[in-house]
Amino acid sequence: MRTLIRQTTVITSHTEPEILEDADVVIDGQVFTYVGPRQDWQEDFSQIIDGRGKVVAPGFVNAHGHAAMSLLRSYADDVPLMYWLEKRIWPIEARLKREDVYWGTKLALAEMIKGGTTTFADMYFFMDQVAEAVEEAGMRAVLCRGLVGVGDEAESGLEESRLFVERWQGRAEGRITTMLGPHAPYTCPPPYLKKVLALQEELQVPLHIHLAETADEVEQIRREYQLTPTQLLRETGVLERPVLAAHCVHLTEEDMDILKAYDVHVAHNPGSNLKLGSGVAPLPDLLARGITVGLGTDGAASNNNLDMMEEMRLAALLHKGVRQDPTAITAADAFMLATRESAKAVFLEQAGMISEGMKADLIMVDLQRPHLVPRHNIIAHLVYAAQPSDITLVMVDGRVLCEHGRLTTLDEDEILYQAEQRALLLVNEEEGQI
Amino acid sequence: MRTLIRQTTVITSHTEPEILEDADVVIDGQVFTYVGPRQDWQEDFSQIIDGRGKVVAPGFVNAHGHAAMSLLRSYADDVPLMYWLEKRIWPIEARLKREDVYWGTKLALAEMIKGGTTTFADMYFFMDQVAEAVEEAGMRAVLCRGLVGVGDEAESGLEESRLFVERWQGRAEGRITTMLGPHAPYTCPPPYLKKVLALQEELQVPLHIHLAETADEVEQIRREYQLTPTQLLRETGVLERPVLAAHCVHLTEEDMDILKAYDVHVAHNPGSNLKLGSGVAPLPDLLARGITVGLGTDGAASNNNLDMMEEMRLAALLHKGVRQDPTAITAADAFMLATRESAKAVFLEQAGMISEGMKADLIMVDLQRPHLVPRHNIIAHLVYAAQPSDITLVMVDGRVLCEHGRLTTLDEDEILYQAEQRALLLVNEEEGQI
Repeated sequence: MRTLIRQTTVITSHTEPEILEDADVVIDGQVFTYVGPRQDWQEDFSQIIDGRGKVVAPGFVNAHGHAAMSLLRSYADDVPLMYWLEKRIWPIEARLKREDVYWGTKLALAEMIKGGTTTFADMYFFMDQVAEAVEEAGMRAVLCRGLVGVGDEAESGLEESRLFVERWQGRAEGRITTMLGPHAPYTCPPPYLKKVLALQEELQVPLHIHLAETADEVEQIRREYQLTPTQLLRETGVLERPVLAAHCVHLTEEDMDILKAYDVHVAHNPGSNLKLGSGVAPLPDLLARGITVGLGTDGAASNNNLDMMEEMRLAALLHKGVRQDPTAITAADAFMLATRESAKAVFLEQAGMISEGMKADLIMVDLQRPHLVPRHNIIAHLVYAAQPSDITLVMVDGRVLCEHGRLTTLDEDEILYQAEQRALLLVNEEEGQI
Repeated sequence: MRTLIRQTTVITSHTEPEILEDADVVIDGQVFTYVGPRQDWQEDFSQIIDGRGKVVAPGFVNAHGHAAMSLLRSYADDVPLMYWLEKRIWPIEARLKREDVYWGTKLALAEMIKGGTTTFADMYFFMDQVAEAVEEAGMRAVLCRGLVGVGDEAESGLEESRLFVERWQGRAEGRITTMLGPHAPYTCPPPYLKKVLALQEELQVPLHIHLAETADEVEQIRREYQLTPTQLLRETGVLERPVLAAHCVHLTEEDMDILKAYDVHVAHNPGSNLKLGSGVAPLPDLLARGITVGLGTDGAASNNNLDMMEEMRLAALLHKGVRQDPTAITAADAFMLATRESAKAVFLEQAGMISEGMKADLIMVDLQRPHLVPRHNIIAHLVYAAQPSDITLVMVDGRVLCEHGRLTTLDEDEILYQAEQRALLLVNEEEGQI
């Protein structure tokens, strides 16, 4: 399979969003083999795509989420966090069956692909079903079984994690990689974290954890350990391993210095942090320290969509307003967060940019739309004005997953039907119970 | 012309977003004549629209903006406000010709209609061209000539305003109404505001003004008058007239009490306030006082789109996060702000709800999309998850302006071409000048 995208505009996203005009892109198998000025090609291609009037950009990398929670989209909104979790989300999550997670994940994948997301990081349960959905959909994913260190599943979760990593690491032609997922410092006490670290030592995959999401969490850990959650993870030895820490909303200056010193990667989730009333993460301070920060949507129960364009926009807008500084996060910063920096954050060195030798994960965006004219600044357009429906092509690993909004690997009608029916059943069961 | 929308879900937006399932909607000429349970209609209709699987909601009312500034979309981003205005926006605005404003406005109308906006309030110059574009497009609009009280156009602006109001008030079958547009307290000193008030006394149209947008403005007015901008407007007598005040970001508690006491209407513009680094308006406090608040995008140079769904989402998310209170602004609050409350804010009593006798301005939204399934909560879907491309029908005054993304009254290709060419020319002129 050899694809040529002709005469297009490319945003490469090396270390900044560099723009190539009138460029050609060649993809051989799963990787880019040419990205540069337009040429007179004599060779044969299996497919030639006209890129005029369009922009080719790296696909988005969603650095933190819980895909199957799309089944719970708009199930509980505008309520306090603890009520949301304890009274609404956890009870209905306890009812989820393997097949629910499979179809909930597929619902999320359909949305993510249509919105230009080519890779996502996920923490949930029934992860075999999640991995199967990913394999079928053709996406790239970094998956882990969420671990809670108290209760029935503390030990079995570790065993499941081991089996999951052994089974799926590098599968789906290398599109699936794995992590270990200790949920958070407040749900995984230090003795349990030590067990996770022992397993990590053995399996050599990174860790994915929620960190300092709410002021309550920080307060609770302080009361119990006289440490911040970040300090607690350092004391426990967690930070000496490769770590992706989601949220990082409530950090002290010292916490941020620790994250930098240990090269902890951060997933910034502005939409979810706003919606749950968690607060505003100190993104400009993290970036000023040179910390690797990616961008995530979190689950659809707390967002309520998986739209990385919206997340990119929130990352660019929010900090300007809150700090009353219109230079706080630039459009270029936000674009890098959603692409190359997110790929680095989820420990993928070969994704997130349009460059020879890199995995061919890309989107094409049609600029001939009223909200994207005139063309003063393409990066600003993508960050501040674009919509998912402007995306005309989504490719992962050199394979087209979506063309003009039509999914090529997933049956959208079947997914919508299954998701709606299963959600209805879950709610009926739950309400019958009360 | 008699239209039936059959077997649909309606969000009425009287005082809250009430939902009618399996409902019919009948439109006679320009108004709704039936909104209620499905019936067996024996009469003839000129058009019957199948509403199954879709939601009929009021069209969005964009309470504050500068449509023609769409020509400057992404022309200057991520720079400090005064540099943005003085070095970038004002110099290029000075080059705008009548025809530029006409095509810039049409570009904005194309975007707004596709995004479900049926009414907008606008303050700019060459307003005859704006009104002509509105008349052709079939939208509803509340228009005013922006007035600056210093410099060449102080007096001529007043005269233009008079002519504009006399010529356009109630025109386009009543779809156009007018206001007087003193730009802001810091650009219109009290003696000039008095002249505006004299004209208002005569013409009896409301006032549209920017108020307390930035901390700098408040500081400047305090230095000069030892008053807040709101107090200054009260002292000058402005608040005794019907007033729409845009932004209102930096208010004291007393300022908010004054706005309530004088029944001043507020246009909340969260996207623009964030992007320019102006700050976060005290929306929950305004609503707690019972102040009439609408929602606006501001111009595309500072947003950078005119997407009311995004604005509604920002209004719902932003205040939750900043106040760390997930109940601060509910989805229902935000939905009302974007529809009925915005209509009230721009002094239109007959728009912004789906109800018998009201103007037939509506959108239909297709819920069969991956990001809108499952259907736990429709209002939450529209506020937190929907996209402009989910809108399948836009109607103003009983007339279809957009169907499945295709504009019926505007030539989209011509608009995109004109906007791109004119913007290019303006930038070339401006850069040749430097």
